[in-house]
Amino acid sequence: MAELALAIDLGGTQIRVGLVDALGQIVTQQSTGTRALEGPFVVIDQISDLCAQVLAGTQAKGAAICAPGPLDTISGRVFGVQTLKGFEDFPLRDALSQSLSLPVQVENDGIAGAVAELCYGAGRTYSDFVYITISTGIGGGIILDGKPLRGRRGMAGHLGHMFFHRDWPRFAGAHMPCFEDWGAGPALAHRAMARAALDPASALHNRALDARAVYQAATQGDILAQNLVQDEATLLGIGCASLIHILSPQAIILGGGMSQAFTQLAPMIEKTLSNHLKPGFDGVELHCAQLGTTSSLIGAAALVFHPHLAARA
Amino acid sequence: MAELALAIDLGGTQIRVGLVDALGQIVTQQSTGTRALEGPFVVIDQISDLCAQVLAGTQAKGAAICAPGPLDTISGRVFGVQTLKGFEDFPLRDALSQSLSLPVQVENDGIAGAVAELCYGAGRTYSDFVYITISTGIGGGIILDGKPLRGRRGMAGHLGHMFFHRDWPRFAGAHMPCFEDWGAGPALAHRAMARAALDPASALHNRALDARAVYQAATQGDILAQNLVQDEATLLGIGCASLIHILSPQAIILGGGMSQAFTQLAPMIEKTLSNHLKPGFDGVELHCAQLGTTSSLIGAAALVFHPHLAARA
Repeated sequence: MAELALAIDLGGTQIRVGLVDALGQIVTQQSTGTRALEGPFVVIDQISDLCAQVLAGTQAKGAAICAPGPLDTISGRVFGVQTLKGFEDFPLRDALSQSLSLPVQVENDGIAGAVAELCYGAGRTYSDFVYITISTGIGGGIILDGKPLRGRRGMAGHLGHMFFHRDWPRFAGAHMPCFEDWGAGPALAHRAMARAALDPASALHNRALDARAVYQAATQGDILAQNLVQDEATLLGIGCASLIHILSPQAIILGGGMSQAFTQLAPMIEKTLSNHLKPGFDGVELHCAQLGTTSSLIGAAALVFHPHLAARA
Repeated sequence: MAELALAIDLGGTQIRVGLVDALGQIVTQQSTGTRALEGPFVVIDQISDLCAQVLAGTQAKGAAICAPGPLDTISGRVFGVQTLKGFEDFPLRDALSQSLSLPVQVENDGIAGAVAELCYGAGRTYSDFVYITISTGIGGGIILDGKPLRGRRGMAGHLGHMFFHRDWPRFAGAHMPCFEDWGAGPALAHRAMARAALDPASALHNRALDARAVYQAATQGDILAQNLVQDEATLLGIGCASLIHILSPQAIILGGGMSQAFTQLAPMIEKTLSNHLKPGFDGVELHCAQLGTTSSLIGAAALVFHPHLAARA
């Protein structure tokens, strides 16, 4: 039987556990709703139960867990997860290793997604790319010379936390709006509701909206929704342009929930790039991620099969 | 006699040429005002004349030139230099190699500055840091695993071109304000003059100002100048925080003209970092660059002595 990796994707709403082969194929998987308010030891028990079900006696080659972080992939400690209670300064790697009686690697889920695209997805032909995942937040991972950039404590790639505001003195001590605050799904939904309230002609008028509803209405010809999609694409393009100027990658790969609207967003993202990139940065390629909602799970497994991609201990 | 590298720093106002030893010491140097409006071949002649004076018959181990760019360090072509006429898509490496009858490396001056700090300055004890140079523009270089990050075409490190604005739709087709537009010396001077016009009590009132004048007045106790310095430090701190979230470096090193005011700026930069960095990013160290105005020259020379730091051909 082929060697299999035990991979865990810990999120604020769902825990997903899978056995994944060396080609990135999920052989079997289980998921459950995260008991997010009950503290880390309840969550560790949930993970362990799922692992036992998925393994069903199979011997895994190794195990890896990814989570939103920020987390220190060198020490395996989580500094905190916004959507999970009690994970402040929690030794995730050691607690889970003990519970599973297996050595476990810990990775940021954005970096895991980037590794998945590198090994099995849209990044296979590149040595240098930026993977940006846009869902309820914005995160990602940076691949340089065919390996993830981890930096100090393994914490590189918090791409949603580029700050985006001119009114800095006003925000000196307060929360400073960042790429995530303006570009992620909830921000689009918020803008949509604010503008739709003033536009009785729009199908979006006076409805509770999420980002998906805006993309759908745009597809169906709603003018306001189409304008909102163009604004969103412009903003994503500006974020991409900043990252291109800093890192000069070969390609940008967009993943997360927003990637389902990639074909709607891509033309204006490309236009924004050509408007704002300095000379010589033309030709950076823009791609949709290929691995969908299981990318982080597959990427965590890839770390088990490809030790040169794993964080240094 | 010790081996010497021939290093050239091409700027919009000045050309500087030096012979530098393997310890980063400038043995001899010459400079001249750049004939910036007369086209690249006049400038190449100026450089060649200075090189002949500096060499005076000495055999150099190799030669390297740095310039503002954006430039392609792989092919040695410059895409354009804002302050130099006629450098659009100019084959700087080949033209200079031919004129000097020597192989010449081409490097972005921000990356050269980072390499200098890595080899001989404030970056010696780090493997991962971001060097930010703040003068009339903002540029820099990123050191990862002890080597400069170059990326596609060798163009990484254009740190001044992170975009900094929330009003993206308004700027969709126009110039989008970026870190450089708000953080570099001219922006500080511009803010200072606007605010001083309304403040007769300030020593800055109704004067033509540059950034240096603002720092000097702040040192002498001028309240408006002190407030302007705090705002500038806040803005620089926000730019640093964005870069820390993306790259997770061990340290940030600030160079360029603004580094002369490092001790005035550092406390508020540190405070801004602690206000805006996500958990776990604490402890990134902030340093003043050590090599002053000759850092790019010394860094170019370092590329001659340390082939593992040079761009891949």
